[in-house]
Amino acid sequence: MSEESRVTFYPWEKVVDVAPDTTLLDAAEREGGMSIESLCGGEGMCGTCKVIVDEGEENLTEPSTADTQILSEDQLERGYRLSCRARVQGGGDVTVTVPPDSQNTGGIVLTEGEELEFDIDPAVKKYHVKYPTPTLHDNVADLERIEQALADNYDLDIAAVDYEVQRELPNDMREREVEDHLEATATVYEGRELIDLQPGYEETAYGLAVDIGTTTVAVYLVDLKTGETEAISSILNPQSTQGGDIMSRMRYARRNDDGREELKREIREGVNECIDEVVREAGIDREDIYEGVFVGNTAMHHLFLGIEPDYVAGSPYIAAREAPIEVKARELGIDINPSGYVYWLPVSGGWVGPDKVSVLLVAGHYDEPETTVCIDIGTNGEISVGNEDEMLVTSAPAGPALEGAEISHGVRAQAGAIERLTIDPATLEPTYETIEGDAPNGLCGSGVIDALAELFATGIVDQRGKFRDDLEHPRLRENADGEDEFVLVWAEDAAIEDDIVVTQNDIRSVQMAKAAIQAGTRVLMEELDIEDPDRVLLAGAFGNYIEKTSAMTIGLYPDMGLDEVVSLGNAAGVGAKLVLLDRNQRPETERIIDEVAYYEIAGTDIFQEKFMESMYLPHKDFDLYPHVEARVEDRRADATRAAQKGSDD
Amino acid sequence: MSEESRVTFYPWEKVVDVAPDTTLLDAAEREGGMSIESLCGGEGMCGTCKVIVDEGEENLTEPSTADTQILSEDQLERGYRLSCRARVQGGGDVTVTVPPDSQNTGGIVLTEGEELEFDIDPAVKKYHVKYPTPTLHDNVADLERIEQALADNYDLDIAAVDYEVQRELPNDMREREVEDHLEATATVYEGRELIDLQPGYEETAYGLAVDIGTTTVAVYLVDLKTGETEAISSILNPQSTQGGDIMSRMRYARRNDDGREELKREIREGVNECIDEVVREAGIDREDIYEGVFVGNTAMHHLFLGIEPDYVAGSPYIAAREAPIEVKARELGIDINPSGYVYWLPVSGGWVGPDKVSVLLVAGHYDEPETTVCIDIGTNGEISVGNEDEMLVTSAPAGPALEGAEISHGVRAQAGAIERLTIDPATLEPTYETIEGDAPNGLCGSGVIDALAELFATGIVDQRGKFRDDLEHPRLRENADGEDEFVLVWAEDAAIEDDIVVTQNDIRSVQMAKAAIQAGTRVLMEELDIEDPDRVLLAGAFGNYIEKTSAMTIGLYPDMGLDEVVSLGNAAGVGAKLVLLDRNQRPETERIIDEVAYYEIAGTDIFQEKFMESMYLPHKDFDLYPHVEARVEDRRADATRAAQKGSDD
Repeated sequence: MSEESRVTFYPWEKVVDVAPDTTLLDAAEREGGMSIESLCGGEGMCGTCKVIVDEGEENLTEPSTADTQILSEDQLERGYRLSCRARVQGGGDVTVTVPPDSQNTGGIVLTEGEELEFDIDPAVKKYHVKYPTPTLHDNVADLERIEQALADNYDLDIAAVDYEVQRELPNDMREREVEDHLEATATVYEGRELIDLQPGYEETAYGLAVDIGTTTVAVYLVDLKTGETEAISSILNPQSTQGGDIMSRMRYARRNDDGREELKREIREGVNECIDEVVREAGIDREDIYEGVFVGNTAMHHLFLGIEPDYVAGSPYIAAREAPIEVKARELGIDINPSGYVYWLPVSGGWVGPDKVSVLLVAGHYDEPETTVCIDIGTNGEISVGNEDEMLVTSAPAGPALEGAEISHGVRAQAGAIERLTIDPATLEPTYETIEGDAPNGLCGSGVIDALAELFATGIVDQRGKFRDDLEHPRLRENADGEDEFVLVWAEDAAIEDDIVVTQNDIRSVQMAKAAIQAGTRVLMEELDIEDPDRVLLAGAFGNYIEKTSAMTIGLYPDMGLDEVVSLGNAAGVGAKLVLLDRNQRPETERIIDEVAYYEIAGTDIFQEKFMESMYLPHKDFDLYPHVEARVEDRRADATRAAQKGSDD
Repeated sequence: MSEESRVTFYPWEKVVDVAPDTTLLDAAEREGGMSIESLCGGEGMCGTCKVIVDEGEENLTEPSTADTQILSEDQLERGYRLSCRARVQGGGDVTVTVPPDSQNTGGIVLTEGEELEFDIDPAVKKYHVKYPTPTLHDNVADLERIEQALADNYDLDIAAVDYEVQRELPNDMREREVEDHLEATATVYEGRELIDLQPGYEETAYGLAVDIGTTTVAVYLVDLKTGETEAISSILNPQSTQGGDIMSRMRYARRNDDGREELKREIREGVNECIDEVVREAGIDREDIYEGVFVGNTAMHHLFLGIEPDYVAGSPYIAAREAPIEVKARELGIDINPSGYVYWLPVSGGWVGPDKVSVLLVAGHYDEPETTVCIDIGTNGEISVGNEDEMLVTSAPAGPALEGAEISHGVRAQAGAIERLTIDPATLEPTYETIEGDAPNGLCGSGVIDALAELFATGIVDQRGKFRDDLEHPRLRENADGEDEFVLVWAEDAAIEDDIVVTQNDIRSVQMAKAAIQAGTRVLMEELDIEDPDRVLLAGAFGNYIEKTSAMTIGLYPDMGLDEVVSLGNAAGVGAKLVLLDRNQRPETERIIDEVAYYEIAGTDIFQEKFMESMYLPHKDFDLYPHVEARVEDRRADATRAAQKGSDD
């Protein structure tokens, strides 16, 4: 009996003993937890199963013709081999590394260290095809020749070819002749449409995850083979010049003849600007980007696509469509491969758009037994409440205050922005941290929430958010407009020429924003008869940075133990990336639309009533917030003790 | 028992006796040979089943709400009724006329009086939909509302919506409100894509059948409801400035940087010019044209679509694709509804293009037991030979001589063109007929063929096509270039200043053209072992006008009794119209591709050999043409008798 070989696979560090003549690909498949890509099913066609032989090359068969044709000289020298061709022999040990682009699973790290695992199975795939050179006796047409090769080698039955690809196909398919046949790389979308044909063997393929927020646009360039994010670019949504909030943009669209077209052009140009930047940063060819998966709220969805937004803007808030949208990039003027696609996740209903669907996909709580409150904090707060049995989703018009906008000294999350702030309950002196440690220039979103929480916890403002009348302190003063304000940083310590303050109006703005979210949450909880949810998930580009205690102190989410509050990071963007890398998530997003019911709160009496109660800190009924009540009591007791200690000294 | 009513249906003049309460629609369905359109299945939704009540209105129920909503006041006054709503009562007689747009069968008259019958079932259909006005409690999205209505009323499950239609859909779907619901008309392509949404009830829908010949472009505007051709426009193919034949255009494309783009632009502009004309002539809105079905040879197909034509131009003559092509009109810049489609019939192989597939569809001989030779006469002659068991098809490079082009006095088929010509065998004096009886200005295609046939039959030219050396006649002379020529019309009788002549070179051109077709035919006959085919079908815009005897005399098609030679008219254009009006013909054209084998003759020795034999009149082997031999003998005998009679006098 022949001797077995021991093969060790990195990065998994798994060891497999196999009989002589076993391929490395088969060896990997013996053991769970390892997965090597192999589009052609181990036929030596696609090159996707390549591995690096670290040790024991002498215990493998010689490189095959497929190896020398598909792998570059440089790769061959560095020990690359097609794992479907390399067979063990002679019984010696072999050690191989499976590089990221040959692994077919990926992971995305969420904020709190949790990793989201998924299969790398993008809608866009590249297939290496070989086909006979045409002759008088073999006069099958060009496209049909490519189709036949895809069917023979990959069992793929493509139904369509992009019109633009068709035009140059006769040239492209003939450029690389090897012996008696031709070869090329076919890029196929969703297993059904040929969207590129390149001579020879090509494997580069990128996609974009695009998150269009009312305030911020973020574009992630993702390698479709490894799942790695290669570059990120973000800008202020260029539509902001037509209004910071959605409603003012909607009004702009309605009142100006060319308004809708202008908003459409602005946002598309903004996305293209980000694309230019990621292309430059990663040093890639934009023709290699074949898809952009887009998320955003319903208004951004409509405005980006140039769809009439008027009816979703007012009661009864009807979206133009719910189903996902798939449009050629060239139809929208998005500067990626013109035959590639823009894919928008579906709309759940009314204001609850693709961004919330994306958050739900990442959160996954519609499939779990625990009752969960999931809040995506943004200019519109999207809220989902429930569990696997029933889940409701709604959208609350928070406005931009929680992101630091429309606040006297609000700034974007930039160097010098105050992101953490505490107030000493005894002295009422603030302590703060800024981004990158620079001298402070204002408050970003998390700083704003901290400020209000601390003003309340230390008793500087009361439950209604009013500055205490009876307090005398050098930092509490009346400004030129006759409005009360609290000085957080004196001008001498600031990077700006003024004192950094929080005014009574600022507090009012933050109260209204949090009240919208809190009221929306409470409407859904009441509708589902939930009093104490099991946990809270926080999403939103800015959700990462919020101090959970502060957010709970002002009542942004229901009172509970902090262990049950989990931050998902920028879940909307992560969801877009997930959908980009794993096409099986697409039907899943449509399932979400079916599983989750949209509940319209806008204009309802119950929302109005709960909104008024939620203007209080943390809520009109303080009993609903026992953890907050305890904390506030502790802080104030500390202050009292400190004051006594001070007077004792 | 209640009394039956007798209903008479025009135009079929069929009589049906039905029980009280039967609808007119049901009554019509009792009897075969009558077919009333009813898209919604008799639910009073679509309005397609309307009829005109000529007599006995009092024996029908009163007009329903559906009648008053769907039919115009003018129609109601003229006696229109929805046949699905009108029920007979009281036992009296009723007489109705089913107007053409409510009948769902159509017919196209071929040249020789034969009518091609088919179902009117176009890819483009309009559906009248009603759906509830959205409210806070019914917040289904706009598109999904339309989809639901199409599913409920028409059992139609649309998978896609055109991106451009989507953009204005929220406005268009709300424009017409009737009581508590909204209504609109949805235009659906192939039962799967929404390509238009119009407020209210609309029924106008047109399509184009477009025949792109190397020489002539013809556009037919067709009413998709009645099947009637409403207007026709044709122009000289604008690419002709880059060469009259395909090969010179191909060279132009190859040798000029922008050549391919220029040829593409020219032909598309030419088609748009024709569209402008039919739109103007019929007085319609071009937005109501939703589809153009295109035919043409492979080169025209590639050049129109902007596909690289280089590889189909030279050996081994490989087409870029065979499958039919469906592209949005806006992608090609064709001036119909931008969300509509351009549909090209499939390519059979090499030079045998969509035009020949269209001819085969109309000829239908691939499905019949008789062995048939079908020739589509054009700048490229497309030939099919065989029967239901086996059929071969090829393309022969005839050049434009048979169409009167590149001949000294060749003209297009216009007023004054000589279309019939005979030569008196005794006096050698020609007699001719011109188009519209004007004074002659040249020879069109049929005149050219007549001229050569008569010159041969009367012995003025010999079997090799050479003017007889020994003949002395005032009409036979040597021209300034030292070339022999025969005067058909003296300048004094002509509309031009010169004598109208046929030169030795003209004869050579016509011989080469007919030899290409004849040789192509004989190669296929030999390949299939056919000596005497059962019949000949002649197609081609100009096939109509050929004098069959003349065409056989020069050997253009195999020798046989004239009864077995049938002219199909412009079968390519007819086929395009058929495919436009009956979508079931689309899979049929793909079946043709499978049933009929392409045989490449270009560059083969056997074609070259048969071409040389076919340069003779009618063929090197005169025995193959017994009917022609007999005729020529008769003519010459007549001449001899006449000469004798003359000398006897």
